Amino acid sequence: MQTLTVDLAERSYPIHVGPGLLGRKELLAPYITGSQVMIVTNDTVADLYLDVVRSMLPDLDVAEVVLPDGEQFKTLECLETIWDALLTAGFNRRCTLIALGGGVIGDMTGFAAASYQRGVDFIQIPTTLLSQVDSSVGGKTGINHPRGKNMIGAFWQPRVVLADTSVLATLSDREFSAGMAEVIKYGLIHDSDFLDFLEGSMPALLARESVALTHAIVRSCEIKADIVNQDETEQGIRAILNLGHTFGHAIENAMGYGTWLHGEAVSAGMNMAVTLSRNLDWLTDADVERTGRILQAAGLPLRPPSGVSTARFLELMRLDKKNVNARMRLVLLSRPGQACVTEEVPESLLTRTIDDFTAC
Amino acid sequence: MQTLTVDLAERSYPIHVGPGLLGRKELLAPYITGSQVMIVTNDTVADLYLDVVRSMLPDLDVAEVVLPDGEQFKTLECLETIWDALLTAGFNRRCTLIALGGGVIGDMTGFAAASYQRGVDFIQIPTTLLSQVDSSVGGKTGINHPRGKNMIGAFWQPRVVLADTSVLATLSDREFSAGMAEVIKYGLIHDSDFLDFLEGSMPALLARESVALTHAIVRSCEIKADIVNQDETEQGIRAILNLGHTFGHAIENAMGYGTWLHGEAVSAGMNMAVTLSRNLDWLTDADVERTGRILQAAGLPLRPPSGVSTARFLELMRLDKKNVNARMRLVLLSRPGQACVTEEVPESLLTRTIDDFTAC
Repeated sequence: MQTLTVDLAERSYPIHVGPGLLGRKELLAPYITGSQVMIVTNDTVADLYLDVVRSMLPDLDVAEVVLPDGEQFKTLECLETIWDALLTAGFNRRCTLIALGGGVIGDMTGFAAASYQRGVDFIQIPTTLLSQVDSSVGGKTGINHPRGKNMIGAFWQPRVVLADTSVLATLSDREFSAGMAEVIKYGLIHDSDFLDFLEGSMPALLARESVALTHAIVRSCEIKADIVNQDETEQGIRAILNLGHTFGHAIENAMGYGTWLHGEAVSAGMNMAVTLSRNLDWLTDADVERTGRILQAAGLPLRPPSGVSTARFLELMRLDKKNVNARMRLVLLSRPGQACVTEEVPESLLTRTIDDFTAC
Repeated sequence: MQTLTVDLAERSYPIHVGPGLLGRKELLAPYITGSQVMIVTNDTVADLYLDVVRSMLPDLDVAEVVLPDGEQFKTLECLETIWDALLTAGFNRRCTLIALGGGVIGDMTGFAAASYQRGVDFIQIPTTLLSQVDSSVGGKTGINHPRGKNMIGAFWQPRVVLADTSVLATLSDREFSAGMAEVIKYGLIHDSDFLDFLEGSMPALLARESVALTHAIVRSCEIKADIVNQDETEQGIRAILNLGHTFGHAIENAMGYGTWLHGEAVSAGMNMAVTLSRNLDWLTDADVERTGRILQAAGLPLRPPSGVSTARFLELMRLDKKNVNARMRLVLLSRPGQACVTEEVPESLLTRTIDDFTAC
């Protein structure tokens, strides 16, 4: 097990990463203040891991909420289910909520903790690669609204995060690869050496070997923490965490959300961003080829789906909420392992780059 | 106009107090970051003050939400109305919410601001004496749940508070007196000199004279800020802000919430707490008489309604959420101008004190 501490002004918290963490009750006990604990999970994860997490909470007053699995349930209605369960169980301000699941469960449980009796403790046990490397750091919690994703929420930090690499064994190959897209992103935007590691270790990672996974997760969380610490309020550098996301959102939107997984769209989007960076002479052909090779080795797509015109692609990109006024803001690479945010890309070059990806 | 600054670790904010503040746009302008402003108010207050507040926001993109007036509308449904209006208007993370109204509007708007896009700016324009001296300090926001008051919410601080004493002219005598109960409370728990001032200035206060009101509001906010700063997370001393509230909640509950105003119940409750303190030999008969005189001068009740038995009173007091385990925690006065929290009151003395108030 490796432990990374996320340093925060108000309070710091540890992220424990490694195999076989579920079941080790000493990892949770120091972070539970009162006697009341509510485990929030979904029906898929409950079947696999609810019993073992329950076994980590002896002599406590443990309640459970099992929600349906899926992004379409990241709603006010499910949040109300959690609030109601807390009140029905008579839970007080010293209770602890445990989020056991992927990003949807983590975000929703975190916001339930942030808003119950003006804020109670919260522990994250992320069960997907994506949530282990993404939701573990940054404190973003929330729910979707019919008019937009994550529109209602709060910043709320967990007391501790357990990222158990063993649980990734039950993840589908497709979900695992989608999570790898975000891992590769951390290398691209911030750490060329980490990208070397990922390139060399891809077979071990895909085989879900715990040593390689532990390093990949710890390093991803470190990089995210480093970037978030520089920009807690999301004014500037934090935007580089969105490499590939403006292109990716256009893909997700064009296909209908859920057709492509987020990580798949980000993969194609990152390849487009890297190609555009090359077209600006910031990267070499070799950099583009290497990025493509790593993404492909992870089982990820390099190109958007066919059938989306360049004009439509540009239109969807303009909806991105990073845009301020009329300028299109893009995250690109100024060199391998270093991202930047720019509004200075000539329209013609952007169009030409997208053309190369939309033409079949 | 007097200005008090509330010092907070994260960010400080000013409370401007005095007559004729509404209409002075220079008091708001420094605290509005973006161009989008949403005024949230209720139908009673909208008729009186919405136009003048709107006039303080020239050249801005101003939207409004007018909710029904009353504690029974401090609900998730009304909160959703605010969220929906923000999203329908296309408001972004740089928008500002203005709460124009009493405690219900302030609490609900504050929580809407805390939870919209993970937190946006928020300005308070409290229009009742109670909300000017109570909600202006402490950052408590939230809504009621069918299973309990203020069960869902967050701590969220305003950027600025405008406590305009002129608006108190439109407050009913009964609402005004109920607000005075909290003002008197600050003197009792923390500042004997302030109690002297209130005793001497009660006629001027009841006549809503701005000089007396300004001092009373500023001093109340100072005292609350002082106590809250010593105990932001509500573990200890902050409980003294609840002088009279355990008795008061029993009264409100026995009568059905809304029959007695909160301040009225707190007034009788404070008189009971002061009497119990005297029965413990912590106060003199003269202290009790003086407290009664001030409360009466403010038009407030000294005794609970008849018809509630001592046994029922005790039962309702035990429901109070300050109680930890089986002990009854009470806020009493250790001397005039100094409150304390105790679990050491002999049951027999408590019963005898309540007997004196429940016997007709």
